[in-house]
Amino acid sequence: MTSSEQTPTPSAFPEPDRIEGGAPGDRPRLVREQGVTSPLGFRAAGIAAGIKASGAPDLALVFNEGPDHSAAGVFTRNQVKAAPVLWSQQVLTTGRLRAVILNSGGANACTGPGGFQDTHKTAEAVAEALSNWGTETGAVEVAVCSTGLIGDRLPMDKVLAGVTEIVHEMAGGLSGGTDAAHAIMTTDTKPKQAALHHPQGWNVGGMGKGAGMMAPSLATMLVVLTTDAAATPEQLDTALRRATARTFDRLDIDGCISTNDTVLLLSSGASQIPVEQADLDEAVFAVCDDLAAQMQADAEGVTKRIRITVAGARTEDDAVAVARWVARDSLVKTALFGSDPNWGRVLAAVGASPVRIDPDLLSVSFNGSPVCENGCGVAGAREVDLAGPDVDVVVDLKLGDASASVRTTDLSHAYVEENSAYSS
Amino acid sequence: MTSSEQTPTPSAFPEPDRIEGGAPGDRPRLVREQGVTSPLGFRAAGIAAGIKASGAPDLALVFNEGPDHSAAGVFTRNQVKAAPVLWSQQVLTTGRLRAVILNSGGANACTGPGGFQDTHKTAEAVAEALSNWGTETGAVEVAVCSTGLIGDRLPMDKVLAGVTEIVHEMAGGLSGGTDAAHAIMTTDTKPKQAALHHPQGWNVGGMGKGAGMMAPSLATMLVVLTTDAAATPEQLDTALRRATARTFDRLDIDGCISTNDTVLLLSSGASQIPVEQADLDEAVFAVCDDLAAQMQADAEGVTKRIRITVAGARTEDDAVAVARWVARDSLVKTALFGSDPNWGRVLAAVGASPVRIDPDLLSVSFNGSPVCENGCGVAGAREVDLAGPDVDVVVDLKLGDASASVRTTDLSHAYVEENSAYSS
Repeated sequence: MTSSEQTPTPSAFPEPDRIEGGAPGDRPRLVREQGVTSPLGFRAAGIAAGIKASGAPDLALVFNEGPDHSAAGVFTRNQVKAAPVLWSQQVLTTGRLRAVILNSGGANACTGPGGFQDTHKTAEAVAEALSNWGTETGAVEVAVCSTGLIGDRLPMDKVLAGVTEIVHEMAGGLSGGTDAAHAIMTTDTKPKQAALHHPQGWNVGGMGKGAGMMAPSLATMLVVLTTDAAATPEQLDTALRRATARTFDRLDIDGCISTNDTVLLLSSGASQIPVEQADLDEAVFAVCDDLAAQMQADAEGVTKRIRITVAGARTEDDAVAVARWVARDSLVKTALFGSDPNWGRVLAAVGASPVRIDPDLLSVSFNGSPVCENGCGVAGAREVDLAGPDVDVVVDLKLGDASASVRTTDLSHAYVEENSAYSS
Repeated sequence: MTSSEQTPTPSAFPEPDRIEGGAPGDRPRLVREQGVTSPLGFRAAGIAAGIKASGAPDLALVFNEGPDHSAAGVFTRNQVKAAPVLWSQQVLTTGRLRAVILNSGGANACTGPGGFQDTHKTAEAVAEALSNWGTETGAVEVAVCSTGLIGDRLPMDKVLAGVTEIVHEMAGGLSGGTDAAHAIMTTDTKPKQAALHHPQGWNVGGMGKGAGMMAPSLATMLVVLTTDAAATPEQLDTALRRATARTFDRLDIDGCISTNDTVLLLSSGASQIPVEQADLDEAVFAVCDDLAAQMQADAEGVTKRIRITVAGARTEDDAVAVARWVARDSLVKTALFGSDPNWGRVLAAVGASPVRIDPDLLSVSFNGSPVCENGCGVAGAREVDLAGPDVDVVVDLKLGDASASVRTTDLSHAYVEENSAYSS
């Protein structure tokens, strides 16, 4: 059991580099202590509604006070979609959202027409409570997100009572966003928030939970992003798709694709500052990238943060496909858990990928040390020290100029333990 | 750690049903105490040549005395192919083999031109030793198989000295085949042999090691099959492809595709009985199927033997694709390790597969107990008892008449432990 004794706990991970630099006001500044309520025009809350048997917080609300209500979303590619995903996809076709209600403690997936009615009723209850509170709201302006065990109906009495309570709890300032970030946690050990302050005077904030999206873990990923920049639904949609394609979509903890993954971006326009697409793209990317790094560092059973970079590919899609294949390989992931520089497994994974490669050109390095050149091992390859918490694997295909990275983690005893006893 | 305490050890697995039945001589009879030397016209040996540091047996030879020397082979689909695979594919183009030399203790993969020369020299040494022994043999009549760690050159002094010794050790009878089956083991805990006696008077024998092929484990799979039926290379090739497509190709322990997987079928024709294609197909299938079951039961870290059956598919290929997707899902495999009937993970895996399905039609059963009907859980689904060593998962897509099964295992602490410390 030496391999598990020497591994660091997730909390031992150092904070990754921030993208901030220069004097405040000079360049975009990224901070982690703030989330969805960092931009102007947003309120949020998180409460314990009794959905979780543990009594932990389990209901969150993000409310957009306006003046704008532009919104965009991306959702799981799984063909088995949870009821809240089907609902939220439908209401997002308007490009408008006033609120997002999120619950942990149950995924409301594989629950049939009854489960969909539960989602609809939840959205109606939020709309009614917000209307009573003074903001005329329709159910089609409320997105719903759920996360937790697949297959069980939600305790609707608790959800509906919680909705009434949470609308009264909404607060401005940072605490509402932080409370919301806590309330969406399932197997997460830490809340995940990030906010970017743009020198032009507008902001992007976000919160997330879980381990990935579109190819990631069943520790369902939910993310809500907010901005006070004045942006159209089309601008938000473009920025969101560009950001998620290079961040959450390249976070692959265990290759398992959730039924509930949802990423939403809401704009209040409260800064009254119109934004250029490129600036919005960059800001939304920065917040998504930081949330993805936080998810990787807190993924189930993680003892190593691993980045698989594939260079020299014919296309970026090829690079992602090969990197994802390596990132999902159980033998690569167990070897890295054991700090074992077993580069042959990386070559075997690359060769098994759906991308045509030339095995005699492959070169591989671990944390900057070459371990394989032109398909053969190099002297000292078995002595590379991988004991630290970060492992950088670079594979050069030498077939072109494209490259891409996928974030993953090791496959540890803790992953097996956590996932062998999740529903029982 | 309750999940690991209640799991059986691999040796607790009961022997699966034999296909034998009726009186001897009446129907084909399958036995496990015999292997490659069960058919007439074959000799074999297994010795410790010093390739493994442990001193365990590591070199095996299978020799076809004729009169025929027909042969066929199938090989890994990995683009990164070990030197012995490249060599054996080349010599097999003749449809003839006189001998197969196999070593454990090193895969001779990712070893460049030098590694290929090592394979060539090994085949030449076997040819020379057999010629000296009285059977004129060319290097192109000798297939080579290697298994073990990827990336290291073989200790050729020990391999070549071993070749000379092993030719002298060849013996008829069962012991030679059994010695050979022992000498090809790596992480296997048991040798794997099977033989089928056909009532028409001819026989098929086989030995194997490892966990699968074409999509299976890096615990490289090697299989040598022999028959004394009089059969052309074309007949052997047809029978072998048909058998492997439904046996080894549907054994998927961890989704990792080896650089060395090789399955060879050699015919001596010593029974002088010409065989019908259908009879040969059935016999080769039976031996392959039994060897695949033995590999599943002895796979790395196995505590459960799992069969994923997908019914109601549009095509058999669709059924295999969905079954394989479920068989590779880490969350399904960890849940079953914990005897947890978490059927939602099965639905999520089915929905994530590349086959278009209708989520509202899906039904799932565990060991015959329905747990999900038309995409929703059924009463009692969370109470299904999966504590035993075998789990039968049946998914009905209700889209057509095709079905297929894939064999896999659970994902256990032992798998992680074994694979986090393999090369170090």
